[in-house]
Amino acid sequence: MKLYSYFRSSASYRVRVVLNLKGLDYETVPIHLVKNGGEQHSDSFRAINPEELVPAFCDMHEGRDVALTQSLAIIEYLEEAYPEIPVLPANAIDRAHVRSLALSVACEIHPVNNLRVLRYLTKDLGFTEEQKNAWYRHWCEAGMAALEQKLAADPRTGRFCFGDTPTLADCCLVPQVFNAQRFNCDLSRMPTIMRINQACLELNAFIKAAPASQPDAE
Amino acid sequence: MKLYSYFRSSASYRVRVVLNLKGLDYETVPIHLVKNGGEQHSDSFRAINPEELVPAFCDMHEGRDVALTQSLAIIEYLEEAYPEIPVLPANAIDRAHVRSLALSVACEIHPVNNLRVLRYLTKDLGFTEEQKNAWYRHWCEAGMAALEQKLAADPRTGRFCFGDTPTLADCCLVPQVFNAQRFNCDLSRMPTIMRINQACLELNAFIKAAPASQPDAE
Repeated sequence: MKLYSYFRSSASYRVRVVLNLKGLDYETVPIHLVKNGGEQHSDSFRAINPEELVPAFCDMHEGRDVALTQSLAIIEYLEEAYPEIPVLPANAIDRAHVRSLALSVACEIHPVNNLRVLRYLTKDLGFTEEQKNAWYRHWCEAGMAALEQKLAADPRTGRFCFGDTPTLADCCLVPQVFNAQRFNCDLSRMPTIMRINQACLELNAFIKAAPASQPDAE
Repeated sequence: MKLYSYFRSSASYRVRVVLNLKGLDYETVPIHLVKNGGEQHSDSFRAINPEELVPAFCDMHEGRDVALTQSLAIIEYLEEAYPEIPVLPANAIDRAHVRSLALSVACEIHPVNNLRVLRYLTKDLGFTEEQKNAWYRHWCEAGMAALEQKLAADPRTGRFCFGDTPTLADCCLVPQVFNAQRFNCDLSRMPTIMRINQACLELNAFIKAAPASQPDAE
């Protein structure tokens, strides 16, 4: 198994956590999103992912290497192919709840603030660094405040986003908190998120997946 | 079953298609995203979805109404709870491929261009109508060009995004094409997408789910 990853990519970070939680051995192939004009735009990587985004993931299937893309699709694949340690609950209603929490990060918060959007703001639209950071904080704080409410209001929230075992939701939450802290977002009104984040960061699977633990960390 | 929906919301449109493909009867509860300051911000709707987003979906579970949110989480729930007519393929690799196509729409194209982002551009950042539309077209055309490549390059692409039966990927693609056309995006370089879109629009499930067919259509 190979994970095409960038240490600071939060979508890569999600997949790293799931691979670690499931105890799967994988090789990291670093794709530097900034150096060399962005290695995700190279011909060799485009052959793996025409979307020019990390992560991409390769697994052996019927004797050949198959490439998968989009972090949540990769994670659902891992859940189906390696179900021994699950990252989704057992029943359909609870699974929908955990997926909904994960998608709140993956569809509402992260896409508006990923590298290519921030770059477009400064390079194409002439935003200053301060305006770019204000954009980041606006969407991040609004999205995380809604997520805080979802978590605080739900009786299924436990030590982690769902009960007392990490799930897909935690695997998405922790990388988002990491990003939010990098951009100095105000997380003081998000006690549930911060408590869960802390609980996750005590686990080996999360420690090993952190940007600072990656072979391409700077 | 109740679907809290707005006729022009492409995330609601996705769920409507899946409900129709599966032949499930449901009641539409219209939530007007513009009138009355946005009904998604009302106290009664916030009790159902603190994220203040459509769609939300209610189903009976163990004798009580349970609310689900986030279109893709709702669709995965429908796939698990009502599996008779599936919208995902059988094997894990193909399922990952279909989910990846769906997520290309749901994570890469749609979030940067949804109503609240476009509003923020004009109301908070002072973008002109023309600048807002240019923003829309930039992200929509870039994202759809990547999706076109994914579809054109994959031997599994058939009459629909995956083979000759509609899947989750088509349910996400068609609402995105509808949006792109509303904003006059240039879709001339996307023959595969447009061909698939046309094939979908010939099916009753897609016709019934279209914005113009909704009880709240204007």
